[in-house]
Amino acid sequence: MITVPVDSVRIFIEACLVRLGLEPLHAEISARHMAFADARGTDTHGIMQLPVYARRIRDGGINRSPNPVWEQETDQSAVLNGDHGMGHYSAHLAMEKAIEKARSHTISFVTIRNASHFGAASSYAKMASDAGMIGFVTSNAAALMAATGGTERVLGNNPICFAVPRKDRDPVILDMACSNVAMGKLVMAQNKGESIPLGWALDKNGNPTEDPYEGFQGGGSLVPIAGHKGYGLALIMDILAGVLSGSNYGKNVGRMADSAVPTGIGCSMIVLNLARILPPDLFGERLEDLLGMVLSSGKGANRIYLPGEKGADTARERQASGVPIPEALIAQLAGIADELGIDTQAYGF
Amino acid sequence: MITVPVDSVRIFIEACLVRLGLEPLHAEISARHMAFADARGTDTHGIMQLPVYARRIRDGGINRSPNPVWEQETDQSAVLNGDHGMGHYSAHLAMEKAIEKARSHTISFVTIRNASHFGAASSYAKMASDAGMIGFVTSNAAALMAATGGTERVLGNNPICFAVPRKDRDPVILDMACSNVAMGKLVMAQNKGESIPLGWALDKNGNPTEDPYEGFQGGGSLVPIAGHKGYGLALIMDILAGVLSGSNYGKNVGRMADSAVPTGIGCSMIVLNLARILPPDLFGERLEDLLGMVLSSGKGANRIYLPGEKGADTARERQASGVPIPEALIAQLAGIADELGIDTQAYGF
Repeated sequence: MITVPVDSVRIFIEACLVRLGLEPLHAEISARHMAFADARGTDTHGIMQLPVYARRIRDGGINRSPNPVWEQETDQSAVLNGDHGMGHYSAHLAMEKAIEKARSHTISFVTIRNASHFGAASSYAKMASDAGMIGFVTSNAAALMAATGGTERVLGNNPICFAVPRKDRDPVILDMACSNVAMGKLVMAQNKGESIPLGWALDKNGNPTEDPYEGFQGGGSLVPIAGHKGYGLALIMDILAGVLSGSNYGKNVGRMADSAVPTGIGCSMIVLNLARILPPDLFGERLEDLLGMVLSSGKGANRIYLPGEKGADTARERQASGVPIPEALIAQLAGIADELGIDTQAYGF
Repeated sequence: MITVPVDSVRIFIEACLVRLGLEPLHAEISARHMAFADARGTDTHGIMQLPVYARRIRDGGINRSPNPVWEQETDQSAVLNGDHGMGHYSAHLAMEKAIEKARSHTISFVTIRNASHFGAASSYAKMASDAGMIGFVTSNAAALMAATGGTERVLGNNPICFAVPRKDRDPVILDMACSNVAMGKLVMAQNKGESIPLGWALDKNGNPTEDPYEGFQGGGSLVPIAGHKGYGLALIMDILAGVLSGSNYGKNVGRMADSAVPTGIGCSMIVLNLARILPPDLFGERLEDLLGMVLSSGKGANRIYLPGEKGADTARERQASGVPIPEALIAQLAGIADELGIDTQAYGF
C-alpha cells in the first residue's frame, strides 16, 4: 500500500481527466466525487475506477465533451440528458437542480437519461443533507442479478441511498446495493482460487453456487438481498431510474467493460425540504432523540453504528493520514499518468 | 375454514365499526382497506385485526370520533394530524391529498402524525397507481427489531411500499417489511411447539435463536433483512414517518396490545405524477418492455412473478370465490357481532 493525501488523489484524477480531453469543470467535479468515495473508504468507487473511465473516454463509451441539456422541466421536476458524459458531472448537476427546486417547492424529482456510472450515490445524497434537506438517490446499472425464480441476469444491483442532515454532526447516510455482495467479491475470490459462501451467487441455471467462476464468468448472477424483496427493490429502482428517465433499463444497460459503448445508465433523485414540514430545530432534536435510542440499545462489547458513521469516521482518518492505494493500482495509475505526460511524483506517489 | 364473500367481509367490518361508535364514513373507508387486504391474501392485515381494533376502540387506544386536521400545508406537502382515529381513514385522507397535490405539482409529500395501524400499505399506494401515478407509502410500527449490534428492540419492521401503474394491467406493487419474517410467525411456531430457523430472531442478548419464545416473549427481537441494510432502511423509514411527521418514533411507538394507549404511529407518502416526466403512453410501453424482459428471464419450471402479481391473482380468485376465514377467527367475530347486536348470518357466516 502507498498512502496518498486525499487532496492529491483528487487533483491527480482531475489532471488525468483534463488531459483525457474533458472540460476542466467536468473534470474538477468528477474528481471531487471520486475522491469523496476514496476518503470514505468506498474504495471500489474512487480512483480504482480511473483506469476504467480512462479507457471508456478513449474508446467513446464516455463522451469527453458532452452537451448536457435540460429536456423537460416543471417547478418541481426536471429531466437532464447527460449526453453520455462523465456520470459524476451529470449527477452533480441533477442534484444541484433538485436542491434548488426543493428549496422553493418543498419536494423535487430530477432524473437523468444518458447518464454514466457516477461512483458513490452517497456523494450526491450528501449534497442534499449538506443543504439541510433529505436526499434520495438511485441509479440502475448493468444487469448482474436474476429475478426471483429466474436464471438470466436482468437487473443491476441498483443502489438505494438516503441522506438525512444532523445538526453539527455527520449526516445519516444509508447507501446500499440490492445484492448481498458486489461482483468484485467474486472476482477477488476467483483470483485467489477461493470458493464463495452460498448466498452470494447463482450459477447460470439459477442454482446456488460456491464457485465464483460459475457466479460470474460462467454466466451466473448475484443473489438479491432478502430474496424477492431485493429483486423487487431493484426492479422499482430501475423503473424510477431507467424507465422513467428515458434511459436504458434492464438487460439493455451497457456494461463498463464494453468501453466503446455508452452505458445509457439512468439515475433519479428526490430532495425533500424538511423545513416545510417541521421546524428544522425541532426535527433535529427529535432525530437526535431517535438516534440516541438506537445508539444506546446494545449491551456488552458490540458497538452500534449509524448508517454512514463508519464512512464519516474513515473520511476524517484519511483526511489526516491519506488514502491507502494498493501497489498494483499505483502501477496502473503510473501507466496512465505516463501516457498523459503527468508526473505522479508531484502527487506524492 | 369458512369462505365468506369479499363484499360480506367488507360490509360486516363496516357494520361492526359503526356499532363501535365510528363515524359511518370512517367505518366505510376503513372496512374497504381491510377487505382489500383480505381479498389480496394479506390475511394478517384484514378482518383478522378486527378483534384487535374493536378492543382498542373500546379501551381508547383508537379514538372513535377523531377530528383529523391539516396542520401544515404547502402546494406540494401537508401534515395531517390523525387525532388517533382509525389509521385506515387518516391514511386514505393523506393519500387523497398527496394525489391531488401531485396532479397539479408533479411530486408531493404528505405525512400523518397521530396515525394508527393502517393495515396493508399497498392499499394506499395502489390509490396512486389507480390515478396513473407512482405511489410510495411507509409507516413506523412498534419496535420489534434491534439495530445491528444491538440487543434491545428499538425499531419497527417498518413497511416500504411502492406502486407503479400499468396500462390495462394490475400495477406493480412492492410491499415489504424490513424484517425477514413477521412476529406472527414466531407466535405460530410457539403455539405449535415448533422451533424456528436461524435468521428469524435474536434472543434478548442479541444472539441468534431457534426458540420462538426467546425471540418474542423472552425479550428478543426480529432479524432485519440483509443485516445492516434492513436496519438502515427501517431507521430511514422511521425518520420519514415518525420523526418528520411529529409523531412517535423508535421504541416510543405504542404496541397494539396496550389497548388503552394510542400508538402514535406516523406515516409518510410520496406521489409522483409521471406524466410530468414522460408521456404516460411512452412510460407504459417502456415499462412493459422491462417487465417483459424480467418475466422471460427464466428457464425450466420456475415461474417468475412481478411484485404484487400473486396478490392481484389472489384478489381475482377471492372476488369470485370468497375469503377463507379460520374457524377460530369466525368464533371471535361471532362474539363481537353478538355483543354489538349484529346478525352474522346476514353476512354468510
